[in-house]
Amino acid sequence: VTDQTHELSRRSWVESANYHPSFPIQNLPFGVFDPGDGRARVGVAIGDMILDLAAALRSGAFDQDLAALAALVDGDALNPLMAAGSRVRKALRRALSAALAEGAPATTIALLAPVLFNAAECRMLLPSRIGDYTDFFAGIHHAERAGAIFRPDAPLPPNYKYVPIGYHGRASTVVVSPADVRRPNGQVAPINGSAPSVEPSQKLDYEYEIGIWIAGGNSAGEPVPIDQAADQIFGFSLFNDCSARDIQRWEAQPLGPFLAKSFVSVTSPWIVTAEALEPFRHAQPSRPAGDPQPLPYLSAPLDQAEGALAIDLAIHLRSAAMAEKGAPPVHVAAMSALHLYWTPAQLVAHHTINGCRLNPGDLLGSGTISGLTPESCGCLLEQTLDGATPIALPGGETRDYLADGDEVIFTAQCRRDGFVPIGFGENRTLVVSAI
Amino acid sequence: VTDQTHELSRRSWVESANYHPSFPIQNLPFGVFDPGDGRARVGVAIGDMILDLAAALRSGAFDQDLAALAALVDGDALNPLMAAGSRVRKALRRALSAALAEGAPATTIALLAPVLFNAAECRMLLPSRIGDYTDFFAGIHHAERAGAIFRPDAPLPPNYKYVPIGYHGRASTVVVSPADVRRPNGQVAPINGSAPSVEPSQKLDYEYEIGIWIAGGNSAGEPVPIDQAADQIFGFSLFNDCSARDIQRWEAQPLGPFLAKSFVSVTSPWIVTAEALEPFRHAQPSRPAGDPQPLPYLSAPLDQAEGALAIDLAIHLRSAAMAEKGAPPVHVAAMSALHLYWTPAQLVAHHTINGCRLNPGDLLGSGTISGLTPESCGCLLEQTLDGATPIALPGGETRDYLADGDEVIFTAQCRRDGFVPIGFGENRTLVVSAI
Repeated sequence: VTDQTHELSRRSWVESANYHPSFPIQNLPFGVFDPGDGRARVGVAIGDMILDLAAALRSGAFDQDLAALAALVDGDALNPLMAAGSRVRKALRRALSAALAEGAPATTIALLAPVLFNAAECRMLLPSRIGDYTDFFAGIHHAERAGAIFRPDAPLPPNYKYVPIGYHGRASTVVVSPADVRRPNGQVAPINGSAPSVEPSQKLDYEYEIGIWIAGGNSAGEPVPIDQAADQIFGFSLFNDCSARDIQRWEAQPLGPFLAKSFVSVTSPWIVTAEALEPFRHAQPSRPAGDPQPLPYLSAPLDQAEGALAIDLAIHLRSAAMAEKGAPPVHVAAMSALHLYWTPAQLVAHHTINGCRLNPGDLLGSGTISGLTPESCGCLLEQTLDGATPIALPGGETRDYLADGDEVIFTAQCRRDGFVPIGFGENRTLVVSAI
Repeated sequence: VTDQTHELSRRSWVESANYHPSFPIQNLPFGVFDPGDGRARVGVAIGDMILDLAAALRSGAFDQDLAALAALVDGDALNPLMAAGSRVRKALRRALSAALAEGAPATTIALLAPVLFNAAECRMLLPSRIGDYTDFFAGIHHAERAGAIFRPDAPLPPNYKYVPIGYHGRASTVVVSPADVRRPNGQVAPINGSAPSVEPSQKLDYEYEIGIWIAGGNSAGEPVPIDQAADQIFGFSLFNDCSARDIQRWEAQPLGPFLAKSFVSVTSPWIVTAEALEPFRHAQPSRPAGDPQPLPYLSAPLDQAEGALAIDLAIHLRSAAMAEKGAPPVHVAAMSALHLYWTPAQLVAHHTINGCRLNPGDLLGSGTISGLTPESCGCLLEQTLDGATPIALPGGETRDYLADGDEVIFTAQCRRDGFVPIGFGENRTLVVSAI
């Protein structure tokens, strides 16, 4: 990585960026925010502040070519910027990095300072208009462990190591963090031959996934070759694919999860770009001996060399009782995105092999990411073995699944020797009682 | 049915409407068309003509309240009219019926005639911006017969008679008829322990479903009660949920169909309203003795009394060789929408029981509709028993699945003593070879 936007020594004149766990000048993620006047704007996070991007580009601080990009970001969603592709995004990143860096001309600082907003006073909005949302199943340890619970006879289906398994999700119920998650009602399986009942889910779960935001736009009928697939990705967020396990178990055969997933899914508000993550790209983890090699349409040397993402993920939880006592959230699990069996580029190549068009602003979920130990599980189904081994919270509480009032917090960070760590901010969900 | 818009004696001054198999004045379906100038308009089909609805409402032929509705239909999609709800839609229907009827004032006819376009010279467009598309599985004889092929040990899953099974589909690949359907490439199952291969699907199939277009908009978190669910439906179309059976068989476990469905789905262009179908509503077919009664959230007396739709469906097919000889399409199958186990209102109530918001313009597929005989199957998987019993075409051709150059034509008609039959127009798809 030689791009100067990643230089360890680069600091920002926005002072809070220089000790921010998520948003140093090396990150510069995109999102959509409302500073309090009811008008949504495209923004860039820098430390504790948000830069109003269209206003910044029009401020006179940038040259004419860049100022012209304001038209891509003067709406209430990132879709036009996503559609503009990686060349434009990279040019914008370089210019923003220079303008926000220590040593920028005083005139630049004077022009940009007025269009910086205090993030704590802003409300974040959904980053794009999501045309379609697809959920994958690429976390192999999740697939194995959850499979053993739902299908003891065949935990890992025979197609798993060939097919990046995915299914269509509900786009209209993807919301932005912080979000209330209302406990859904639904049919749950009959007990002892009685009729099934309709009740509030008793097995409400989180699923920690990486959200993959689509830039590209292949044409209908045209697969994206694997060596061009990474270029179709705008960036990444933290994604909570909320799940009702009791509803899921009863409804999901033979056509897959439906109402167990579509009540709500939550993304973190900031999209960390592919460029920001460049230093944290990683070789695709070695497949265990005996595993098949990816089929040709899923296989490219560059993708295998650096297509995976080294992102450390953490889950914290705080119950209502803990919150009342002013206790901080407790650490529940930690894992790495390197546990994904398929790279983001492989997911894109697979999704389009049938000619399916991916549109700018579409969202892919990676699938729940789990490691090999109980303390590295991305969902409670796995960590508590469907409730058999509840987790302990401070104050004597235990959890098999989420209780009303529980708050779930996802965070993530990328670290590597010689580079400034970057993060993703937070994904917060609060469970509220059923209607 | 007492609404005068259905009167048997009502005729239109648009002469072709009085002997049109689909679009007599008793129908008046909505769609979106381009008369040739590149500008999409909302239209109403009447015989061989299409009324430019916004232009008609602004022509002076209608009173002020109705003219104000032009703002709902001056875009390129039906979403705003859908969102306006059934009261507005019904008022519009009554006014259009009166204005297009024989005996309308000469001034009305003089004002409307200039905004009627010859349908043969228009291009039809997708009727709404589809936010989400959901596919159900409500054709019980399809579920039984297809289930026996895919899962011989458990043809009808244990949840089938309790849960209106559905899954999320891909919204961006729903297109309007007439459509080319490109044969998709994809992974198909390994044979004899070899690796799976990637190839053009050899089992390309159609699926005849009813498309259900959503008007309503429940709020997020709020289920739609079954007795209000019918009012959330704008209307119905003919829907071809194209399927690649070999891809489906390999990919669909454990999370359901994905790329086997998302290459393309095709709707007929005209949406026949709930009002037009009122005379053809029907009691929900009796459940066989021993079947459970619907759970309370799926059960309302009015829906059971008249929530089903008596629509006769027909499938025709013409091969490239037949087309070359000028031969007409041949009849392949015929069945009734009364083979659906669940009513449209039950599908809406189920879809929202978890609080999932349905938005105006969303599309539900009913699931493939099949009767009990091979000649009443809604897809080739069933009719040919996955290729074991091919169908014969004129000229010595046979089909297990669709061949390149095949054209599939869906039509439908509603008939009842004392009422003018209405139809849906056509859903035409032409198979083109893989890329």
